[in-house]
Amino acid sequence: MVNNSFRLLQTCPDSRARAGELITPHGSVPTPVFLPVGSQATIKTLTPEELKDIGISIVLANTYHLYLRPGISVIEKMGGLHKFMAWDRAILTDSGGYQVFSLSSLRQVSDEGIIFRSHIDGSKHHITPELIIQFQETLGADIIMVLDECPAHDDSFEKVNRAMNRTHQWAERCQKCQKRSDQALYAIVQGGISPELRRQSAEYLAQLDFPGYAIGGLSLGEPKRKTIAMVEETVALLPENKPRYLMGVGSPEDIIESVDRGVDMFDSALPTRVARNGALFTWQGRHNIQNSAYSQTAEPIVPGCDCYTCRTFSAAYLHHLFNCDELLAYRLATIHNLSFINSLMHKIRSAIINSTFSSFRDNFLSSYKPTDEQKRLNQKQKWLKSHTSSE
Amino acid sequence: MVNNSFRLLQTCPDSRARAGELITPHGSVPTPVFLPVGSQATIKTLTPEELKDIGISIVLANTYHLYLRPGISVIEKMGGLHKFMAWDRAILTDSGGYQVFSLSSLRQVSDEGIIFRSHIDGSKHHITPELIIQFQETLGADIIMVLDECPAHDDSFEKVNRAMNRTHQWAERCQKCQKRSDQALYAIVQGGISPELRRQSAEYLAQLDFPGYAIGGLSLGEPKRKTIAMVEETVALLPENKPRYLMGVGSPEDIIESVDRGVDMFDSALPTRVARNGALFTWQGRHNIQNSAYSQTAEPIVPGCDCYTCRTFSAAYLHHLFNCDELLAYRLATIHNLSFINSLMHKIRSAIINSTFSSFRDNFLSSYKPTDEQKRLNQKQKWLKSHTSSE
Repeated sequence: MVNNSFRLLQTCPDSRARAGELITPHGSVPTPVFLPVGSQATIKTLTPEELKDIGISIVLANTYHLYLRPGISVIEKMGGLHKFMAWDRAILTDSGGYQVFSLSSLRQVSDEGIIFRSHIDGSKHHITPELIIQFQETLGADIIMVLDECPAHDDSFEKVNRAMNRTHQWAERCQKCQKRSDQALYAIVQGGISPELRRQSAEYLAQLDFPGYAIGGLSLGEPKRKTIAMVEETVALLPENKPRYLMGVGSPEDIIESVDRGVDMFDSALPTRVARNGALFTWQGRHNIQNSAYSQTAEPIVPGCDCYTCRTFSAAYLHHLFNCDELLAYRLATIHNLSFINSLMHKIRSAIINSTFSSFRDNFLSSYKPTDEQKRLNQKQKWLKSHTSSE
Repeated sequence: MVNNSFRLLQTCPDSRARAGELITPHGSVPTPVFLPVGSQATIKTLTPEELKDIGISIVLANTYHLYLRPGISVIEKMGGLHKFMAWDRAILTDSGGYQVFSLSSLRQVSDEGIIFRSHIDGSKHHITPELIIQFQETLGADIIMVLDECPAHDDSFEKVNRAMNRTHQWAERCQKCQKRSDQALYAIVQGGISPELRRQSAEYLAQLDFPGYAIGGLSLGEPKRKTIAMVEETVALLPENKPRYLMGVGSPEDIIESVDRGVDMFDSALPTRVARNGALFTWQGRHNIQNSAYSQTAEPIVPGCDCYTCRTFSAAYLHHLFNCDELLAYRLATIHNLSFINSLMHKIRSAIINSTFSSFRDNFLSSYKPTDEQKRLNQKQKWLKSHTSSE
């Protein structure tokens, strides 16, 4: 797969952090990289041009969402996903495994596949690993994902073990039925918060020689130290020359801790979702623009930030837009947060290449105040319970 | 007022249509012109750059809304309205007279001024013609409006007469207290749907020699033929060398009929408001993108339209975004509708300059199917009753 590969450029001398590059049919993607989430073929509020202005080189879309709306065949008729959403850079489609388990109701899982009801209209659907690959080949993303079974973070060991084994079988079936050679199919490591299962899963999938490896089933409500421990366990057993993709992680502090453990790719709705609630990233932590302290601030949110929002508007204007529920607020906040994360990824990569990552990490973590963990878990639970989310 | 004047360039040989130019401290504005409504210092969903791309040269903001949120003094501290909303082209601020009467509660009107309660938090406020001018001088728009009393379309003759006389007194007070010489202060003709009162109002205000004249109190639920009849009555008595501004009118068919009667300026939330409901302008009438007929349409909404939305996306993609309640939908629809209206104004102006306006008008009206009048009145009533609207 010459046309869709990973090049490792530099490894940090005193951590597992790596700098590399994904070569895709729709351009090169520098790693470590953060993928904005565009489940429904749109990064909420933004145009493709704005994403390019921010410097985004790859986005994520979701097979589950697109299968339900507008339907895979509609996107096929419109010339594929890139053309449909007018995005000519790289796309990764998630298989929708996680969404079937978190959003749909009345599901029945068997070795064959999953029967579920749509979270939108209750209609009944049957998917298999083979169908999910077929859908993703029709959509035409640059990177596609195997169908996985994603247990809840508090499921029993037996249940997690069973889901892991099924995920392994499904990964093999996905691999076997893949027809297109221009798409990189990534496997997904499962195993919950059991170090033993994570090791088994990583080893099993590593020997199948996928072009990339995702770490799934994390950041679902388990304590942060568990997440990081599982990442460490898993990465240690994944091949050095393949990209490692931690699914669903997107806070600045988690990204930097995971890069430190050798992760190359991230996706999360967090930066865009919290933006729409007025929570904006600064180098000191997340600040809420709705705080009245901003009502008369002539400076931008982050003085010196070169994003469109900070270059153009005062914090007071953004505060006013949020205060009035003006739709422009959500755009401007989304632009800022994605720019912040993209800038963070750029700084991380430069630090790795210049062998200064450890001090960059320490400096960042000493000044950035993460959101309180209990508050964060509560927010996450609240969000996971809102069963209509496309983020 | 050399720096803020109106230049009449061409009059249609067989109608009252005129082409001209407003000269403002923030650039020249070709007329006839449509002003997008940005009551709260934002044209809903769009950035200033997008408005410029569309070709917008002047926007409207609202003193009532900005007085309540964020407050006039906040905008003053931020360097004025242009800087606050990052818009360096022309701005017209409405006085808020209409909004006080349509949005606020518990109002008491006297010759002195108006006491009202905020539609947002119920707080009590007292405004006078002098205060409204002071607010608008602080905001710093290029064109400002007198405070007027705006009766409902079904109020009694006596009530409409009283409101008209008070509007005249207030116009004189506004004129007298104006301090800044770089802002053009427009009078507002009232008189409801009485031809006699409209004539009185136009004559009274004409002799006060304002730099521009608005026609207020129309398009509030009265039948369309009444609106047009009142426009005709009023325009006939307004000075030829001053711009005429029909407030609150914004459907393509009403604009073209009013240009035909000699109107130069329009504002209305209609194009942006209906866009957010999925109603998109075409040369055949308003079409709703949510109609399932669009679900697999690979063509843009209006083939050949050079707006960003039509240049970039299929109707099927826009249909999908509306179907999923994606925020990008409202942006793309707003861009299309404002581009359509701006393009219409451009075509109207070219036709007037080329002395082909009558045939352009006839061609347009023969192919454009207006929204059914009863449906339109129902929508208007529904909207007028929703007392939180900033459009």
